[in-house]
Amino acid sequence: MVNEDLPPTTKRISILGATGSIGKSASDVILAGGEAFSVEVVTADRNAVALAETARALGANCAVVADPAAEPALAEALAGSGIEASAGREALIEAAARPVDITLAAIVGAAGLAPTLAAIEAGSDIALANKECLVSAGALFVAAAEKAGVKLLPVDSEHNAIFQVLDSRDPNSVEKIVLTASGGPFRTWSLEDMARATPKDAVAHPNWSMGQKISVDSSTLLNKGLEVIEAHYLFDLAPDQIEVLVHPQSIVHGLVAYRDGSVLAQMSAPDMRVPIANCLWWPERKSAPHKSLDIAEVASLTFERPDTERFPALTLARDALERGGFATNILNAANEIAVEAFLNSQIGYLEIVPVIAEALGRAESAGFRAAPESLGDALVMDDEGRRLAREAVTSRSGRQSTAGAG
Amino acid sequence: MVNEDLPPTTKRISILGATGSIGKSASDVILAGGEAFSVEVVTADRNAVALAETARALGANCAVVADPAAEPALAEALAGSGIEASAGREALIEAAARPVDITLAAIVGAAGLAPTLAAIEAGSDIALANKECLVSAGALFVAAAEKAGVKLLPVDSEHNAIFQVLDSRDPNSVEKIVLTASGGPFRTWSLEDMARATPKDAVAHPNWSMGQKISVDSSTLLNKGLEVIEAHYLFDLAPDQIEVLVHPQSIVHGLVAYRDGSVLAQMSAPDMRVPIANCLWWPERKSAPHKSLDIAEVASLTFERPDTERFPALTLARDALERGGFATNILNAANEIAVEAFLNSQIGYLEIVPVIAEALGRAESAGFRAAPESLGDALVMDDEGRRLAREAVTSRSGRQSTAGAG
Repeated sequence: MVNEDLPPTTKRISILGATGSIGKSASDVILAGGEAFSVEVVTADRNAVALAETARALGANCAVVADPAAEPALAEALAGSGIEASAGREALIEAAARPVDITLAAIVGAAGLAPTLAAIEAGSDIALANKECLVSAGALFVAAAEKAGVKLLPVDSEHNAIFQVLDSRDPNSVEKIVLTASGGPFRTWSLEDMARATPKDAVAHPNWSMGQKISVDSSTLLNKGLEVIEAHYLFDLAPDQIEVLVHPQSIVHGLVAYRDGSVLAQMSAPDMRVPIANCLWWPERKSAPHKSLDIAEVASLTFERPDTERFPALTLARDALERGGFATNILNAANEIAVEAFLNSQIGYLEIVPVIAEALGRAESAGFRAAPESLGDALVMDDEGRRLAREAVTSRSGRQSTAGAG
Repeated sequence: MVNEDLPPTTKRISILGATGSIGKSASDVILAGGEAFSVEVVTADRNAVALAETARALGANCAVVADPAAEPALAEALAGSGIEASAGREALIEAAARPVDITLAAIVGAAGLAPTLAAIEAGSDIALANKECLVSAGALFVAAAEKAGVKLLPVDSEHNAIFQVLDSRDPNSVEKIVLTASGGPFRTWSLEDMARATPKDAVAHPNWSMGQKISVDSSTLLNKGLEVIEAHYLFDLAPDQIEVLVHPQSIVHGLVAYRDGSVLAQMSAPDMRVPIANCLWWPERKSAPHKSLDIAEVASLTFERPDTERFPALTLARDALERGGFATNILNAANEIAVEAFLNSQIGYLEIVPVIAEALGRAESAGFRAAPESLGDALVMDDEGRRLAREAVTSRSGRQSTAGAG
């Protein structure tokens, strides 16, 4: 075991979702930190080979795949390493609950809810990269973190920016915060052109290399809408204190405007190792590997208000936040289905938002009002949101086909 | 007396230089703060009427004019107010030494040295707006502040920006800081045009309304050179950790680049009440009167490296900082004379820097090497710097006349 006899200041870390891009960036930061960090648990969905490689590189004590079918491959890949291997949802949650100083919660989607909550309840600070925790069950997670006395440290570049320049000692000192948005590939497109946008157009993100789903979210600004919701829960700010500005260079990630006239901002090159290092080292600030930022080279930083006519997803997300915890949950679930339907060419680009709005309307008609009070609640709502969105997609695809046949 | 029975959290403030633009902005901040502040001493050079008005408005306990000739006018203007009136250098220093929580040191020029030092030695935190304290005798003032256990809070917008985003807990976390410069009225002028620049051209500052002398300093970037020197003393950074970028919009006042890849910046509308409020309220942050900043309205923030060929003052100031405390003292003194000579049309615009360089060379030839070890030393050097610069001006005016006659 590599982690014995560690210096007393070593931070023990678990990484839930170690093989994705956040996990890989975190590995860079941790390896550069040398003896400052020791890794307890690394997890992945099913990529046993990549997980075993990460576990060995980081000297982890334990590696878990969520998919039981991947267990033999993991055991084989870890043979002789002395690293524990296990598999399945139960094993994942159990591993997430092992006592560590900080847990990087980077499992994508609703699958991240239970392990993250287990880590919170075990008393670990959370470097939060999973967005469903706050969008699908924000009040629940904030309450759990408060109860356990743990800190939610935001990994998302925009929220991490706010976190870095927010004086949490006196919330009344804050007038508002600004989350920046690149504006995505359709920033300068007309509505007519957007109506004809293909999946290929939508995933061509100008500044960040990301997955297809999140690239589409960035193109609709729904991603920014979800970030407004997350910011509300993370920083306990009213919706109208959370502004969005389009900033195509993606250098300034977030700003805090104080009531004394000062506006503080965090900037960096687009490199997820920067916010991850901020979380993992917090409350210290230490050297970490990163792309460096040359402001004179960037030369110009521009800001503009988002066009809510062309990007109605932002308004939809704000409405959901006003309506409450059920609506943000449904919004997120329905968006996943709508984006999938767009990527599969079942609906047009400009139908993504109407599909989500339709799912939200149907959920409200079906009597959804209260925020989820348990993980179970949140997952049931999530399923329902997906089902309602699928119905909305089908009825539209039907209309499309009919229209095509007519 | 208005200041009796104050709440225990009231901050006692003295304002050295209360009738200048910094003093006026501070009055705005203090009046808006209501019972949070009580004013002990206000001082002015000789404007008794304005000082009395300020003293009454702020409910000060004591008002002092430096010029003894202004004493009768002050006494008359304060008659019946219950506010003590006194006059003269000794009275000024005595008043500066009264125990308060924070002293705004806003006397312009070498005249600010002794009263500011008296306030430091009396144990008051200092909101420092006088630049000579650090440029003419930086090591002395930093040592005095350390010895007295008081904080030097920078009022200058650039240094205050750095102060707001600098994590002072771990100096090793900082890679470098950036002070921004508007670039002044000659930012886009050619050297040929600059050679013909008139005093009127030079004082036309694009963003801030300032006095003639400081406007010329801003046009040469010597002002920014002095700020590099101040930053060195305030933040204990090596000269090569202090960068200058031209930022014509004057919105981002300073940036700190950390070794973890994050760059934190402070922005505000150009309004001195913002940094003053930051200092007076520190370590709290409270509402204060200010021009508000609409970043979407500003739309574009641009940054470029300064052109040291057209603006050699920046290099000259850096050289002086490398040479040490005598050189920064002489630099500042000689600059005052050179700018005065330019404003009086004795020398051309492009002769300002050569005059300072000549004074520095003469001082070095005359054996100056050590930083001032006392206020007396600093003032003697300052006098010498002025004398040497006058010589340089005279020899140039002579050459000019000769050339004109030839």
